[in-house]
Amino acid sequence: MAVYTEVSDEDLARFVEGYGLGELLSYKGIAEGVENTNYVVHTSMGTYILTLYEKRVQVSDLPYFLGLMEHLASRGIRCPLPVRNAKGEALSTLAGRAAAIVTFLEGFWLRRPKAEHCQAVGRALAELHVAGQGFGRERANALGPAGWRPLYNRFSIHADDIAAGLGKIIASELDLLEGGWPADLPQGVIHADLFPDNVFFLGDKLSGLIDFYFACNDALAYDLAISLNAWCFEPDYAFNATKGRALLKGYDEVRKLSAEERAAMPMLARGAAMRFLLTRSYDWLNTPKDALVKPHNPIDYLRRLRFHQGIKSVAAYGLE
Amino acid sequence: MAVYTEVSDEDLARFVEGYGLGELLSYKGIAEGVENTNYVVHTSMGTYILTLYEKRVQVSDLPYFLGLMEHLASRGIRCPLPVRNAKGEALSTLAGRAAAIVTFLEGFWLRRPKAEHCQAVGRALAELHVAGQGFGRERANALGPAGWRPLYNRFSIHADDIAAGLGKIIASELDLLEGGWPADLPQGVIHADLFPDNVFFLGDKLSGLIDFYFACNDALAYDLAISLNAWCFEPDYAFNATKGRALLKGYDEVRKLSAEERAAMPMLARGAAMRFLLTRSYDWLNTPKDALVKPHNPIDYLRRLRFHQGIKSVAAYGLE
Repeated sequence: MAVYTEVSDEDLARFVEGYGLGELLSYKGIAEGVENTNYVVHTSMGTYILTLYEKRVQVSDLPYFLGLMEHLASRGIRCPLPVRNAKGEALSTLAGRAAAIVTFLEGFWLRRPKAEHCQAVGRALAELHVAGQGFGRERANALGPAGWRPLYNRFSIHADDIAAGLGKIIASELDLLEGGWPADLPQGVIHADLFPDNVFFLGDKLSGLIDFYFACNDALAYDLAISLNAWCFEPDYAFNATKGRALLKGYDEVRKLSAEERAAMPMLARGAAMRFLLTRSYDWLNTPKDALVKPHNPIDYLRRLRFHQGIKSVAAYGLE
Repeated sequence: MAVYTEVSDEDLARFVEGYGLGELLSYKGIAEGVENTNYVVHTSMGTYILTLYEKRVQVSDLPYFLGLMEHLASRGIRCPLPVRNAKGEALSTLAGRAAAIVTFLEGFWLRRPKAEHCQAVGRALAELHVAGQGFGRERANALGPAGWRPLYNRFSIHADDIAAGLGKIIASELDLLEGGWPADLPQGVIHADLFPDNVFFLGDKLSGLIDFYFACNDALAYDLAISLNAWCFEPDYAFNATKGRALLKGYDEVRKLSAEERAAMPMLARGAAMRFLLTRSYDWLNTPKDALVKPHNPIDYLRRLRFHQGIKSVAAYGLE
C-alpha cells in the first residue's frame, strides 16, 4: 500500500487532458495496490483510477491485461474499463511509467465475507470464465506448475528459516504435483488472484471485480481452486465447508464443472496453496525490513496445503 | 503518507450510516496525511473525507480544530466542513480512534507554485485571519516561541549529528529570538502550517485550504512569516523576491499590515524558520528507519534561517 511514483500536478493535468474526460478536479494517491501506484482522479465527467505500473509488472503484458478488461466489460462483466486517449490508446506513459486510466468501480471489499458472498464470488468467477471465451490474446501463467520449481530453487536454501522442515515439505509436494497435475482440463482466461480484496460488494450484492494483473490462460478449475483457498478458510486456518459449498455451488450453477474438473479439485487446491506458499515465502525472505509493503505470512498457505493433502474428493469441499 | 488504522467494512458502513449521508458506495485509504489516517468516502450523496486521528493529535484539541473549520466555513472560507452525525456531533469514534467526516474539497496542491499563486495564498491567509475573528475557542501555540527551547533540549546533544555546528547555531539563535520576540502584535486564529500541500487550486484559482491541525491563537503576522518560508524559497534555497512580494502584497490587500507587523517581519521569519528547523531536526533524529513516513530534511530550514539572519527590513522581502 503505497505511492511509489509522485506525479506533478502539471504533468497529471496534461495527461488527463488527453483523455477527453473534462477538467481535472482532484487526484489523491491511494494506499491500496501492492504492485502499482494508484490515484483516485475526479474530473468534471466523473471518477477514475489512474495507475502507474511499477517495476514488478512487465510492460509487455499490459496490452493483455487492459485488452482483457475491455473484452470482459463488453461482455457485461463489472470490471474497470480502460479509457482510451485521443490517440485511441488505453496504454500510455506518465512520469516515466507505463500508465492507464480506468473507470472507477463503486463498492468495497469485505473484510469478513460470509457464505452468501462466497456463492456470489463463485458465480462471478464462472461468469468471468464464460465471458473470457473469444478473447484473442494469450498469456502463459508465469506462476503455474512449470514456474513453481524454478521459483522454489531461488530460495530453497533459506526455506527452513521460515519454518523448520518447510524445505522438505515443499520439495516432496512439488514432486507429487509435477507427477499428478491434470493436463487435459478445460482451458481459458483465468483471473488467478480473486482474493477478497479484489471483489467489491455494495450491501450484499457483488458490484465488481478488479486487479486483472495476474490474469492469464490456464485451467479454469484451477482458478476456482485459488478462490477456494482465498475465500473459504477462517483466520484460525479452519476450512469453512459452508463457504466451500457456497463457492463451488455458485460456480457450478453458471458453468457446470465436468467430472474431470471435480475429480481434479483436491489436486488443484494443493497446487493453488503451493503457488501462494511459494510466492509468499520468496517475498518473506526477500522483502527489505523497511519496505512500505509488509509481506504476507507464508505459513497461512502451508496450513492450507496441509488441509488439502488430507482431502480425497471434491465432496469434502462441499460439492455433492 | 499512510493508512495507520484499518477499518472493517461493517464498522465503516455503520459509522457512515449515522451521518445521514445516504448509502456508503466506496472508501479508499489515501496516501496523503502525515499525521492521521484519511479515507476518501463516496456515498450516494457525494464525496467526503473520513479522518481517524492518530496518536500525534491530542483528542482534547479536536473540538478546537473542528469548531474552527465550521466557524471559517460559515464565514465563507473554502475549507472542509465537518459533518455532524445524528447526535449532532462533529467528533466521534471509529475503530478505537477519534474520528470525523468532513466535506471533500476539489482541487489539488501545486508542486511548483508561481508568483501569482503566492499572491492568492497571501489573500487567502488574510481572509482566514479576518474570518477567524469571533471564533470563541482558544488554543495556545504549542510550537510557538515558548515551546522552542524545551523542544531543542530534547535533542540538543545529538544536534551536531545532523550537521556540524548546528547545535551552536540553534542555541545562539534561540537566545536572540527569546530576547527580541515582538510581544504586542495583533493576535488571532492562525493556520500555522499553510504549506503548498495544504492549499488547493483549480487551474490558477485557489479552491480551498485544508489541514487545520496546527491551528492556534498567536500573532497573525507570524502566520504570514511561516508562509513566507513555505512558499517563497526555491528548491536551491534561494529566496524568490517576486514570490515574496506577491505573497505579502496579496495579504496586505485584504488585511493591512501595521507598522509594527512590518517592522517585526524579519524577526518573525527567523522564528518561523526556527520552528520548522526544530521540529524537522527532532523528527530527523527520532524517526525509525523503517517508518512509513520519511522525515523532511531539517537543513532546508537552516538555509532559510541563514537567509533571514541577513535581512534588516520587510522591504528585502518585497513589501514597499
